[in-house]
Amino acid sequence: MSSKMAACIFCKIIKGEIPCFKLFESDKTLAFLDIGPLSKGHALVIPKHHGEKLTDIPDDHLSEILPTVKKLATATGAVDWNLLQNNGKLAHQEVGHVHFHMIPKPNAEQGLVVGWPQQKIEMDELKKLFEEIKGKM
Amino acid sequence: MSSKMAACIFCKIIKGEIPCFKLFESDKTLAFLDIGPLSKGHALVIPKHHGEKLTDIPDDHLSEILPTVKKLATATGAVDWNLLQNNGKLAHQEVGHVHFHMIPKPNAEQGLVVGWPQQKIEMDELKKLFEEIKGKM
Repeated sequence: MSSKMAACIFCKIIKGEIPCFKLFESDKTLAFLDIGPLSKGHALVIPKHHGEKLTDIPDDHLSEILPTVKKLATATGAVDWNLLQNNGKLAHQEVGHVHFHMIPKPNAEQGLVVGWPQQKIEMDELKKLFEEIKGKM
Repeated sequence: MSSKMAACIFCKIIKGEIPCFKLFESDKTLAFLDIGPLSKGHALVIPKHHGEKLTDIPDDHLSEILPTVKKLATATGAVDWNLLQNNGKLAHQEVGHVHFHMIPKPNAEQGLVVGWPQQKIEMDELKKLFEEIKGKM
């Protein structure tokens, strides 16, 4: 076990060293209520495999994430809701273990607030960018 | 085919009736550049199965979504980035066909802006809420 894992609060929750409001558990997936919620029913789904960013988690450890998110959304009765997964501090990640937020959006004041600073980009520039990214897929 | 599908812009992109900057395609998944990006490399991953909200999509149509998001994140070279999937107009969904935004976050001005209106909730209330949701899982 790495020192990062030893210090990881979500790894401690997985091991049962820290309690949680557990909503779902399987061999590779855990879901629990966020205790600092943005709205009622705000919950987290995490892979048990430790990794900071989504690209650090092998695909087979991710297979139950979205099915579990669906279960949570249904169980909370959320009508409008956001699924958010942040990678890196600049992107608002606060715990260095991949986690998916399922956040009910009951009204404008509660739940995730989304800011959308759309950029101006010329079609030529977009096409060039596309060729660059496509070449790396 | 329902009238909703016939009118769906993403279903038209899937059928090739509207062009896109296609980055990945398989039997059940499509990825392409967002043409109104929040940052360079902002891309969408969608299930080909038409459904408005994530809970409308059968699990087996979702199995390639996160692996494809990982590929996009790697190909764009994004270090910090957000994964966002909105359900419902109140939650900022603008096209009624499930889509996952992979949004690079190069700096504070570009990419997704996250507002986090954390709620005050008593532990007793959280515990009661937990029991309610848990009973529906």
